[in-house]
Amino acid sequence: MIGFIGLGIMGSNMAANLLANGEELIVYNRTKEKAQPLLEKGAEWADSPKMVAHRADIVFTMLTNPEAVESVALGKEGLLKGLTKNKLWVDCSTVNPAFSKAMAKKTEAAGCRFIDAPVAGSKGPAEQGQLNFLIGGNDEDVEEIKPYLNAMGKSIQHMGKHGNGIATKLAVNLSLVTSMATFAEAISFGTSLGLDREQLMDVLFDLPVTAPVLKGKRNMMLHENFEAQFPLEHAHKDLQQISEAAYQTGSPLPVTHGAKELYAFAKHKGLSKKDFAAVYQLLSEGTSRQ
Amino acid sequence: MIGFIGLGIMGSNMAANLLANGEELIVYNRTKEKAQPLLEKGAEWADSPKMVAHRADIVFTMLTNPEAVESVALGKEGLLKGLTKNKLWVDCSTVNPAFSKAMAKKTEAAGCRFIDAPVAGSKGPAEQGQLNFLIGGNDEDVEEIKPYLNAMGKSIQHMGKHGNGIATKLAVNLSLVTSMATFAEAISFGTSLGLDREQLMDVLFDLPVTAPVLKGKRNMMLHENFEAQFPLEHAHKDLQQISEAAYQTGSPLPVTHGAKELYAFAKHKGLSKKDFAAVYQLLSEGTSRQ
Amino acid sequence: MIGFIGLGIMGSNMAANLLANGEELIVYNRTKEKAQPLLEKGAEWADSPKMVAHRADIVFTMLTNPEAVESVALGKEGLLKGLTKNKLWVDCSTVNPAFSKAMAKKTEAAGCRFIDAPVAGSKGPAEQGQLNFLIGGNDEDVEEIKPYLNAMGKSIQHMGKHGNGIATKLAVNLSLVTSMATFAEAISFGTSLGLDREQLMDVLFDLPVTAPVLKGKRNMMLHENFEAQFPLEHAHKDLQQISEAAYQTGSPLPVTHGAKELYAFAKHKGLSKKDFAAVYQLLSEGTSRQ
Amino acid sequence: MIGFIGLGIMGSNMAANLLANGEELIVYNRTKEKAQPLLEKGAEWADSPKMVAHRADIVFTMLTNPEAVESVALGKEGLLKGLTKNKLWVDCSTVNPAFSKAMAKKTEAAGCRFIDAPVAGSKGPAEQGQLNFLIGGNDEDVEEIKPYLNAMGKSIQHMGKHGNGIATKLAVNLSLVTSMATFAEAISFGTSLGLDREQLMDVLFDLPVTAPVLKGKRNMMLHENFEAQFPLEHAHKDLQQISEAAYQTGSPLPVTHGAKELYAFAKHKGLSKKDFAAVYQLLSEGTSRQ
Repeated sequence: MIGFIGLGIMGSNMAANLLANGEELIVYNRTKEKAQPLLEKGAEWADSPKMVAHRADIVFTMLTNPEAVESVALGKEGLLKGLTKNKLWVDCSTVNPAFSKAMAKKTEAAGCRFIDAPVAGSKGPAEQGQLNFLIGGNDEDVEEIKPYLNAMGKSIQHMGKHGNGIATKLAVNLSLVTSMATFAEAISFGTSLGLDREQLMDVLFDLPVTAPVLKGKRNMMLHENFEAQFPLEHAHKDLQQISEAAYQTGSPLPVTHGAKELYAFAKHKGLSKKDFAAVYQLLSEGTSRQ
Repeated sequence: MIGFIGLGIMGSNMAANLLANGEELIVYNRTKEKAQPLLEKGAEWADSPKMVAHRADIVFTMLTNPEAVESVALGKEGLLKGLTKNKLWVDCSTVNPAFSKAMAKKTEAAGCRFIDAPVAGSKGPAEQGQLNFLIGGNDEDVEEIKPYLNAMGKSIQHMGKHGNGIATKLAVNLSLVTSMATFAEAISFGTSLGLDREQLMDVLFDLPVTAPVLKGKRNMMLHENFEAQFPLEHAHKDLQQISEAAYQTGSPLPVTHGAKELYAFAKHKGLSKKDFAAVYQLLSEGTSRQ
Repeated sequence: MIGFIGLGIMGSNMAANLLANGEELIVYNRTKEKAQPLLEKGAEWADSPKMVAHRADIVFTMLTNPEAVESVALGKEGLLKGLTKNKLWVDCSTVNPAFSKAMAKKTEAAGCRFIDAPVAGSKGPAEQGQLNFLIGGNDEDVEEIKPYLNAMGKSIQHMGKHGNGIATKLAVNLSLVTSMATFAEAISFGTSLGLDREQLMDVLFDLPVTAPVLKGKRNMMLHENFEAQFPLEHAHKDLQQISEAAYQTGSPLPVTHGAKELYAFAKHKGLSKKDFAAVYQLLSEGTSRQ
Repeated sequence: MIGFIGLGIMGSNMAANLLANGEELIVYNRTKEKAQPLLEKGAEWADSPKMVAHRADIVFTMLTNPEAVESVALGKEGLLKGLTKNKLWVDCSTVNPAFSKAMAKKTEAAGCRFIDAPVAGSKGPAEQGQLNFLIGGNDEDVEEIKPYLNAMGKSIQHMGKHGNGIATKLAVNLSLVTSMATFAEAISFGTSLGLDREQLMDVLFDLPVTAPVLKGKRNMMLHENFEAQFPLEHAHKDLQQISEAAYQTGSPLPVTHGAKELYAFAKHKGLSKKDFAAVYQLLSEGTSRQ
C-alpha cells in the first residue's frame, strides 16, 4: 500500500495519478475536506501521519515548507512514529538541502529509508502526470519507486545522494524566478524606450534568449492581470531558501539577490498573493509617464 | 550598387552573403587586408566611406560602437559627405537609441534616409545568412531593403520608428547577458551544494527555465575553456549602453545592474578578452574548497 | 576683475561672497533675473560668457551638468571665445573627470589655464562661505586662486592634476548618496522589527556607524516631509556620472549600483523632485502593515 | 552573586570589569583555560552553565551565535536547568530578534526573567568599560542591572520589549558593515581615477559623509594589512542574520544585500579570517593594471 500526505493542489493531483495507476492508497491531510475527491475514488483515510506510515510501505509527502514537513514528520502522531521495518519515505516538498539531509538521518536512525524527490512543474503537469522528479537518495531505493514516479511524472533525474534532489530543485527555481525578473526588466526597459509591449515580448520569445517557460506569462503581462499560478510570495520564499543554502556553502549570488530584493519590494507593495510575474507590474507602473 | 562598411567577422560574413546573392558590392574598412577575401570574390574597394556613399545607393554599416560609427559617418571623408539624392544608410551596429536617432536626423538633414538594423545572432548565423534583423525606420524604406536583409538573415522584425531597432537589440542583449550571469550563478550554486556540474547543466537545459542559447556554452563551462565567441568586455559594454539608455527613460533595472557589476568584476579580474560565459569562472573559482 | 557664470542657489551665494570680499565682479546667467541681487550689490552684467571672459582675468563657472558647461564654454558667444592671454577658468560644476580633462585640453589649446574646483557642501555652507573645495590643476594656478576660494570656502584640497578635483567630488558624492540609502534601509529595517523610529535614528546618530551629515535628515524622516534640499533626481544623476566614470576605469561598484537602482525606483515612483532622503519613503511605505 | 558565561575576548573583558567593580563573580566557559585570568583575580569557577545559574542571581552570557546560546541555555547541564526563583538572564550575544524572543519565552516559562543586551563596540571599548548596551526587556529588570552595565559600558539604550535590543544591534551592524563596503568602493573608485589613496581617505574622513568608526581602518587600508579586529566572516554572518530578519518582516534591503554578496565574494576568495575591511582588497586588486 502507498501512503500520501499533503493534499494541496499539487499533492491531490499526484495522488490521483497514483490511484489511476491502480495503486492502493491511504491518505492524510491536515483538513479532511481536501481528501474527499480521492476518498470517493477509492483511497483510504488515515487519522494521522503515523497511521499512514503504519499502513503503507512507501509514503509520499508533498507539503508547503520545512515547518510543515517537520510537523508531519516529528509530531506525536507523526510519520516517524509509524515508520518501521525498512519502510520508505519519499518527500516531494520544496525544502532545503540541510533540512532534507536531517530528515534522511532521522529516518535512517529509525531503521527506514528516505528519498528527496521534489518536482519541477506546476498544477497542469501535476494533473497530466507530466512532472519532472529531481531525486536524491540511494540507487536501489530510487529504482524501487520508479513505477510510482512514472505514474506521476514524465522524467526522473537521479542527482545523487540525499539532499541532491532538493539542491537541484533550488537551482531550477533560482533560474525560473530570476529569469522572470530579468524578463520583466527587459520588457519594462523596452517599453520605456517606446517599443510596443506585445511585439517586444514576441521578439524575445522567438529568439533563444528567453526561458521558454516564460511564454506562459504572455497574457498576464499583456493584460496586467496577475491571478496567481505561482504566488509571488512563494517565489520570494524560494529565493530566501536559496539565499540561506548559498550562505551555508559560501556561494556568492549577486544577480539572484538582486532578484530577491525586487520580489521583496513587490511583496512590500502588496503583490504577495499575485502571480510572481507581477514583478513586472512593480517595474512598469509609471513608465507611461515617461 | 550596394555599399558595405565595417568588415569585422560579422560584417565580412554579411557582405559575403550579399555578394553570393548576386549584388554588386563596394566596400570600405579601416584596414584594407580584411577586405581582401571580398575583393577576390568580386567586390570593389573604395578609399573612404564618402566614396562608398558616392557610388552606392544603399550603404550598410556594421561597426563596433558609437564612436566608430561617428568616425565613419561624420569624418572629413565620411559617409554623410557622400550621401546625396535620397540614398539610404542602414546601420547594423550595436549602438544606442539616442545615438541612432541622432544619426537619423543628420541623415535626413542631408536629404537622405536612415534605418537602424542591428542583428541578433553571432558569427555562425552571420556566415549562414541566418541573422535576425531588428529594424527601426519608415515602412517604405524597410520594404526597399528586405531583399538584401533576406540575403543575410532569416527574420526581419520591424519594430517601428528610428531607434526602435536598436532599442529592441538592447532589450535582447539585456536578456542574453543577464541570463548568462543567472545561469552561471545557478551552476555555481548547485555545484557548491555537491551536485555534478554536467548533470545539473543538462537538467537546466532540459527544463524550460533556461534560455536555449545558453546550451552553446555547455562545453565552455564544462571544460572551463572560455575562448571568446562573444567577448566578456562586449557583454559589459552592452550592459553599460543599456544602463545609460535606462537612465534616460527612468527605467529601474536592479537585476540587470547586478549582472553589470558582476561582469565588471570579471573584467577587473582579468577576464575581459574571454567569452562572456567566463563570468562562471569568476563565480566558481574556489568552490572546490568548500 | 573676476568673472562668475551660473547664478543658481549655489553660484549666487558664492558670487556674493566674492563681492563681500571686495572683488570686482562681472557676471552672466542664462536668465538675467537671477543676477539682479548681485547687480544691486555692485556686480557688472555681461551679455554673454564670451564677454565675461573678455573682461575678467579669472572666470568661475558653477553650472548644473556637463551639457550646461559645454553650452557656456563652447557656444558661439561662449567662454572659450573670450579666453585669451593665459587667463584662468575655474569650473566648480559637478561634471565628470573625462569631461573636465577635455575642457582642460581645450582651454590649454586656447593658450589659457583650467582648474576643476567642485565643492562639497550645499546651500547653507555656500551662504556662509564654508564650502570645501576639491581641486584639480597645476600648483601655481591653484596658488593664484586661493584668496578667492578662501572667500567662498573653509577648506581647499588640492588633489593633483586636472580632473582630480571632480574625481574626488564624485567619490564624496558616492559616499553621501549611498550612505543615505543605507541609513534609510537601516531605519526601515529596524522599524519593521518594531523599533521606535526616532529612538533608533538617535542611537544610530550617537554611535559612530553613521555619516554625520545624515543628522540633517532627522526631521525630514521623522515627519516624512521631504522638501528638497538636495533633489533626489540630482542624487541619481550623480550616481549615473559615477557609474559612467567607473565603467571607464573598470572599477566594480556593486553596492553603489544597488543604491543607484534604488534611487531609480524612487524617481519611477514620482519622488524625483523631493529631497534624496525620500528614498526612505519608498522603503518604508507599507511597513506599518507588517 | 553575578554569573558570566562565554569568556572570549569580549566576554573576558566584560567580566573583568565586573570584578574590578567589586562584584562577586562565578564564571563558566567551554574551555577552562580562558577563565584562568579571571580565576586569578578572584572569580569562582562553575562546572556547567546550570551551576552558574544555580549560584548566581543574575547571569550574563556573551556567546558567538544562536547555536552557541542554544547549547549553553538548553543543554542537559544548561542554564535554564539552573534558573529558578525569578532569576535574571542577560544575553549580550549577537543573535536575532526571533531567537531572543524565543529565549525570553522559555526563560519566563521557567519562572525567570530575560533581557537581551547586545553591545556596540569591540575589544578596545570592552577593555575600557566603554561599551554601548542596546537593551530589550522590562523596565524594572533593566533598572536592576544598570549598575552592572555601567561597570562594563558607557551608554545604555533601552529600546523597548524583548528582542528590541538585538533588533537595534542588527540595525547598527547593518550600518557598520554596509558603510565599510561603501567606503571601500569610494576609495577603490577614486584610486582607479588616479587619486592618491591616502589623500582621498583623509578627505572622506574630514567631510561628514563617512561613518567615523571607519577612521580606525585607515592604516589597514593604507598598508593593505588586514589582520582581523572584526573578522570578515562575522560581518557576513551578521548580514545573513539581518537578511533573515528582514525576510520575516518583509523589509526590502537592496543596498544591504549588495554588500552581503560583496562580502560573500570576499569569503569565496579566501578573505574570511581577515578583517572585514579586506572587502577593500577584493575591490582594489587589479586596479593598478588600469
